[in-house]
Amino acid sequence: MLDLFSDPVALCAALIDVESVSGDEARLADLIEAALRAQAGHLSMVRIGNSLVARTNGTNSERVILAGHIDTVPVADNLPSHFEGDRLFGVGASDMKSGVALQLHLAAGIPHPNREVTFIFYECEEIEAERNGLTRIARERPDLLAGDFAVLLEPTNGVVEGGCQGTMRIEVRTRGVRAHSARSWLGENAIHGAGEVLDLLTSHEARRVLIDGLEYREGLQAVAISGGVAGNVIPDECVVSINYRFAPDRSEADAERFLRKFFDGFPVRIVDSAPGALPGLSRPAAEEFIAAIGGVPAPKYGWTDVARFTQLNIPAVNFGPGNPSLAHTVDESVETELIERGAQQLRKWLTR
Amino acid sequence: MLDLFSDPVALCAALIDVESVSGDEARLADLIEAALRAQAGHLSMVRIGNSLVARTNGTNSERVILAGHIDTVPVADNLPSHFEGDRLFGVGASDMKSGVALQLHLAAGIPHPNREVTFIFYECEEIEAERNGLTRIARERPDLLAGDFAVLLEPTNGVVEGGCQGTMRIEVRTRGVRAHSARSWLGENAIHGAGEVLDLLTSHEARRVLIDGLEYREGLQAVAISGGVAGNVIPDECVVSINYRFAPDRSEADAERFLRKFFDGFPVRIVDSAPGALPGLSRPAAEEFIAAIGGVPAPKYGWTDVARFTQLNIPAVNFGPGNPSLAHTVDESVETELIERGAQQLRKWLTR
Repeated sequence: MLDLFSDPVALCAALIDVESVSGDEARLADLIEAALRAQAGHLSMVRIGNSLVARTNGTNSERVILAGHIDTVPVADNLPSHFEGDRLFGVGASDMKSGVALQLHLAAGIPHPNREVTFIFYECEEIEAERNGLTRIARERPDLLAGDFAVLLEPTNGVVEGGCQGTMRIEVRTRGVRAHSARSWLGENAIHGAGEVLDLLTSHEARRVLIDGLEYREGLQAVAISGGVAGNVIPDECVVSINYRFAPDRSEADAERFLRKFFDGFPVRIVDSAPGALPGLSRPAAEEFIAAIGGVPAPKYGWTDVARFTQLNIPAVNFGPGNPSLAHTVDESVETELIERGAQQLRKWLTR
Repeated sequence: MLDLFSDPVALCAALIDVESVSGDEARLADLIEAALRAQAGHLSMVRIGNSLVARTNGTNSERVILAGHIDTVPVADNLPSHFEGDRLFGVGASDMKSGVALQLHLAAGIPHPNREVTFIFYECEEIEAERNGLTRIARERPDLLAGDFAVLLEPTNGVVEGGCQGTMRIEVRTRGVRAHSARSWLGENAIHGAGEVLDLLTSHEARRVLIDGLEYREGLQAVAISGGVAGNVIPDECVVSINYRFAPDRSEADAERFLRKFFDGFPVRIVDSAPGALPGLSRPAAEEFIAAIGGVPAPKYGWTDVARFTQLNIPAVNFGPGNPSLAHTVDESVETELIERGAQQLRKWLTR
């Protein structure tokens, strides 16, 4: 049984030691459900797949959401957890079992918060969107996502991060004419043609956009390239895969329009995309949260589920003790001090 | 039993109908061996694996070699053979059972040639060099390859082709620094870096070299490119595979020196290479052959086993009825008239 009243750092270590790679979260979901039923009986619980929604049922007029995914990327010889100095190591330490530890700490420790709280523990965030636990909850029980403000406990180094950038992946294709490489002048080399695409990318100056006082820095980058038929054949096709990270002042349609114009003359195929989220820090619910946490908000560069809440018209921010630079690395770890400080900050927000 | 005294076109059709994809030549080698023993008893025979060497044993001072491989590329729904108008279709029709038919036609039909003849029927030409039947003969019985001049009956459209270009395959690598694509400025994109390599290739003007009156046209071409870690990662490596086809005035060492200088600043790895062969058309044995065949010699662009004979210091040319453009295609075929004309030309050379 997980001890939700233990020190949140110890709780984080216990969570790390229950392996929960995406698609394999049943055991951890069972443990969290059992612990909440035994130690946080004031919450009403709904389980959907391996996701859990636990809600307070008081009379406060405002409801906030604290959400975190319980899955991790695959283990990379980084289990069980261990401490080195002031850091706790192990898969998920940063992304984001330290955040989940804070959720559980608050769920059990504050039976009468100053605002109603919906705790969401969800599965399959690290993999394809259609398996994401939040996607499933939104489809099957959208009522459970109702709220005035949401905090995702994704790693932010203990800083409030507002909004997130959108992301679009495209394929830009060059075509040529196949020929034997011994008679190359009979062909047209599609890989050579891709040089022009790469030159466009290299000379591109990425936008920097200021929104609600936060600077979003875009990126337009090749993430893959492939071409080639055989060692003695002039290739007739080359595909450059490109990832565009766009500031939240652009919609997905804006992003597509920009890319088609930028790669004018080349066939462009949209592979996938997700919209950004405006920071929304000027909304009252966000302002109160920022005041309680302190510090200067920062922009979120990566794409997170914050955008899902934005689409439901719920202002949302990221705030978690993990370090985003260490997420998904073999040496994933978290500063124990940021877990402790995060617990204090969130307690203050939900109690005073 | 193959009828070596039949019309060489009919003999070619019979050879095509015995499937002999590289590595699977035993049945055809057995048939050729049996036919030569029964119908060309004047030849002494040596079998090595599925390759056969059949030699005349007269008193002429000059010895010439007529060589052809008996394997084909994989069947592509193009068996059995069939005629359409003046063409014979089927796998190997061009490359090079029409040439093998001429060898067998001459082996049986000219018991007392004006120069000693060594007929070589060898296996595994279409695959890796170490399995090539000629390689094995050179290793196990180099004495069998002795001669003053060699003709390879590879497809040349009935024209004498002298020498062949060398080929060298290299990998040029660009390096970068991995980073999450949401924070691309923390990384360095190795695929973008490959743009410079592709631009070098695009702007390169290939050499044209005149040797023995033949113009060799070089080629420097990307044949493959690959790079990419994941859809959200700035890649730290990109590999461009490049094939350099070089005129036979350059050695492999010359070719390597040129490439390292051309791609100065990038790591270059030699993957494989094969030397070219000078046409050697000014040597007396070659001049007599060209005079007997007639027509204007042409350069050979592709790499062929001619280079092996050149390395043994035996002048060698390609001359065969097949069409090199149709080799390895689904619609592989040969003009029957070129088979008949080739038989006459070679008969003239070996008899008058």
